[in-house]
Amino acid sequence: MDNQSFNADHQQALFDIMRHRRDVRGNNFTSTPIPQDVINTILEAATLAPSVGFSQPWEFVMVTDPHIKTQIRDSFNKANAQGQAQFLDAKQEQYKQLKLEGIMEAPVNIAVFYKPSSKPVLGQNTMKEMGEYSVVCAIQNMWLSARSLNVGMGWVSILCPHTVKRLLKAPEECKLVGYLCLGYVKTFYDSPELERLRWEKRKHLEQAVHTNAFPTAD
Amino acid sequence: MDNQSFNADHQQALFDIMRHRRDVRGNNFTSTPIPQDVINTILEAATLAPSVGFSQPWEFVMVTDPHIKTQIRDSFNKANAQGQAQFLDAKQEQYKQLKLEGIMEAPVNIAVFYKPSSKPVLGQNTMKEMGEYSVVCAIQNMWLSARSLNVGMGWVSILCPHTVKRLLKAPEECKLVGYLCLGYVKTFYDSPELERLRWEKRKHLEQAVHTNAFPTAD
Repeated sequence: MDNQSFNADHQQALFDIMRHRRDVRGNNFTSTPIPQDVINTILEAATLAPSVGFSQPWEFVMVTDPHIKTQIRDSFNKANAQGQAQFLDAKQEQYKQLKLEGIMEAPVNIAVFYKPSSKPVLGQNTMKEMGEYSVVCAIQNMWLSARSLNVGMGWVSILCPHTVKRLLKAPEECKLVGYLCLGYVKTFYDSPELERLRWEKRKHLEQAVHTNAFPTAD
Repeated sequence: MDNQSFNADHQQALFDIMRHRRDVRGNNFTSTPIPQDVINTILEAATLAPSVGFSQPWEFVMVTDPHIKTQIRDSFNKANAQGQAQFLDAKQEQYKQLKLEGIMEAPVNIAVFYKPSSKPVLGQNTMKEMGEYSVVCAIQNMWLSARSLNVGMGWVSILCPHTVKRLLKAPEECKLVGYLCLGYVKTFYDSPELERLRWEKRKHLEQAVHTNAFPTAD
């Protein structure tokens, strides 16, 4: 039994942290080291995430070796050139101005992997992705806890996951889910950069909420 | 600019909410209706999640129609029989005792879909799963915000996602990421049910944290 009841102060704290959480990139990290106990607290938050069948299928690799970071940054550079090429004209020009990672600048990088269980997992029979999804829940817990500790985090998705896996000597069955950069920041912005720069507009919630069925197109 | 700085009280509130978040099943929901403004607050939390390229690729279907809920529960029953069969002997007997969903008991079900963009998405070129992962981050925000509002939530992964998609008339390109049950609860337990029943043990964080590389097996 537990029955801990939360009040308006708890709700406000949670929503403030969610609202002020940002994706932080290299032009905004400082080189101030993150104390080990702060990193441990962020990792502990990961383990408080839900996981399918209580499988806890997460593995974390702290990346601090500049030689490895350089190679991961090279993987970003290659993937970023491809990413840029998907956009045309003014949009491509705007893309080129963006700083989209902080691999070298962030004092700590953490690669988060999904490690499948060797046994059947309760709840993972019809939706095989549930293991990976559990790892994503852990990453979101890390992100919120980092923000509450005034540590910035960025998720770098523009890289080759197989290259990262090879560089970090991950077992064959593991899958890279997230490559995270963590560090103290110069500033936390009050809105996402891609919103501020009008790369994408914020969607209205009403357009994304339906009742009992999606609207039919007729 | 923002620079909102959080303190120990905020950190404590966040960690308390994370620590007391539970997966809630049908034997624990009450039929007390959830006020619409509480549901809206939980959906608002979803929209505060990070999303790749600020794509916000989430769609929500509130499911309250008992006829549709019954058909989704039927999908659970079929998938659950298959899930049970993966386990043998005492483990199968234990599985049979578990109540693993709350589709009918929870006053509100919410199906959460990933809707791919028709345009290229910044950050989603080498890791195509990033759209789905963004939706999972939104679900974790919903879970934490629900808990802060003393509303229980359960994630039902034992069902056929294609059946749910068909029943809710989802567009072809959409993918079901999570099927959620929400309601007030009789009690919040102080640990996950599968831990309490010794279905799985809690893992030690140290075993899952490595530095610069996975350990080599030699």
